[in-house]
Amino acid sequence: MFVIADNLQITRHRVEQAVRDRNPEPIRELAVQCQESGAQAIDVNTGPLARQGEEIMRFLVEAIQDACDLSVCLDTVNPLAMESGLRAARNRPIINGFSLQPAKLENILPLARDYEADLIGFLLQPDGHVPRDADTRLALAVELVGHLEAVGVSQDRLVIDPVAVPLMWDDGGRQAVEVVETVRLLPEVLGYDVRTMVGLSNLTSGKPPGPHRQLMEQTYLAMLGGAGLNWVLLNIFNPQTVATAQAVGVLGSGGIFSWQQ
Amino acid sequence: MFVIADNLQITRHRVEQAVRDRNPEPIRELAVQCQESGAQAIDVNTGPLARQGEEIMRFLVEAIQDACDLSVCLDTVNPLAMESGLRAARNRPIINGFSLQPAKLENILPLARDYEADLIGFLLQPDGHVPRDADTRLALAVELVGHLEAVGVSQDRLVIDPVAVPLMWDDGGRQAVEVVETVRLLPEVLGYDVRTMVGLSNLTSGKPPGPHRQLMEQTYLAMLGGAGLNWVLLNIFNPQTVATAQAVGVLGSGGIFSWQQ
Repeated sequence: MFVIADNLQITRHRVEQAVRDRNPEPIRELAVQCQESGAQAIDVNTGPLARQGEEIMRFLVEAIQDACDLSVCLDTVNPLAMESGLRAARNRPIINGFSLQPAKLENILPLARDYEADLIGFLLQPDGHVPRDADTRLALAVELVGHLEAVGVSQDRLVIDPVAVPLMWDDGGRQAVEVVETVRLLPEVLGYDVRTMVGLSNLTSGKPPGPHRQLMEQTYLAMLGGAGLNWVLLNIFNPQTVATAQAVGVLGSGGIFSWQQ
Repeated sequence: MFVIADNLQITRHRVEQAVRDRNPEPIRELAVQCQESGAQAIDVNTGPLARQGEEIMRFLVEAIQDACDLSVCLDTVNPLAMESGLRAARNRPIINGFSLQPAKLENILPLARDYEADLIGFLLQPDGHVPRDADTRLALAVELVGHLEAVGVSQDRLVIDPVAVPLMWDDGGRQAVEVVETVRLLPEVLGYDVRTMVGLSNLTSGKPPGPHRQLMEQTYLAMLGGAGLNWVLLNIFNPQTVATAQAVGVLGSGGIFSWQQ
């Protein structure tokens, strides 16, 4: 399983301070910790602030790359900041947060083509709303692939995120099933082995840590893995959930298995 | 998820002794413990001994039913013992271990019809060998359903077990993937929502208990759940694995979700 750390968030004090001071050291430390904890990529979220977005994105990407060889997953609605991050990226960059919203089709999709980036496409309505069921999600996925083709982005670059919602939403239990079903049906509906990703922290959003939350998180991740999920965005500092992601990777690989201690 | 306890095994001293003495008390205790630990049914395995098979099966089924209202899952190759258990069962009984082996087609399948039992059909070759891949398993499933139709057993009675093999087999890693894929594809191939079951203890067979075995067992069970699995046969006295089975049930139900402590 390809694991992306969601731990570099501008809303956290340590990160915010480092950005304000343009001090790369705390960012480097965080990036190394993410890699050591099992991440293959790190989500770089510059938040909603448009001011200095280009400079901040470049600062963060460079700080990460100075410290480790994680891929960067660029998470901003600001196309200028996005392009700045794409330009700074050494490995193949990943664009996060793409969807059928008109501004993203217009401003983000061409960047994916120009920089040959991987592109995480959210199955959201064009108005940004979360669909209610698997059928709507599958229809949105077909539309998404159509837009990629139209601008010349290879469908192999796409990673689809069916959008897991908090279990505590009114329809959270129903949505959990619809998301698994979407992951299961996408390759058949799209006619190729599309990669899929889920942002796992969303599932338990609003629930404080504890054994029940932990069980639900690990179980749901493995269920998604059994349905075909191959990417996950998660809190890399939760070793139990990371161990599950790695176990899904091993059990889903079909490779030669050997027991560890 | 429908959970069957695999803990009533004639090879265990406590059970063997109770059977030899025809003392129902230890069997009753065990059955109550299984129910209290989360089982909905209990596998009744009378072992390979043909002698007194009918009487032993009736003794075990009656002891269980005296103590609790678990369904009984009858696990014997002896058709006389099987019929004795079916006759003694109060709830709808479950026949375990059915497959395309000629003796089972001839002697066990008609019993499923006559006693309106649920029937767990293993995707084994007619000679008893384990198939190597999902395609072979799916073809065996189609054949199995054909035999049911031919003798007038409703396909709704069938529960398919794709046969999970020990991870430590040479091709164990590959087989783990093939089994998940079989579970995922069966409803589409058979054209209806067939129920599926896996005997989970098989997966980790030969590996002593420990955290890595535990992680693999829980992860694989949830992966199967995400692929569509709805029954499981397991060691009901492993509370972590049972908790995962229950979490898969909750997250796969689509019902209203509420967080517990």
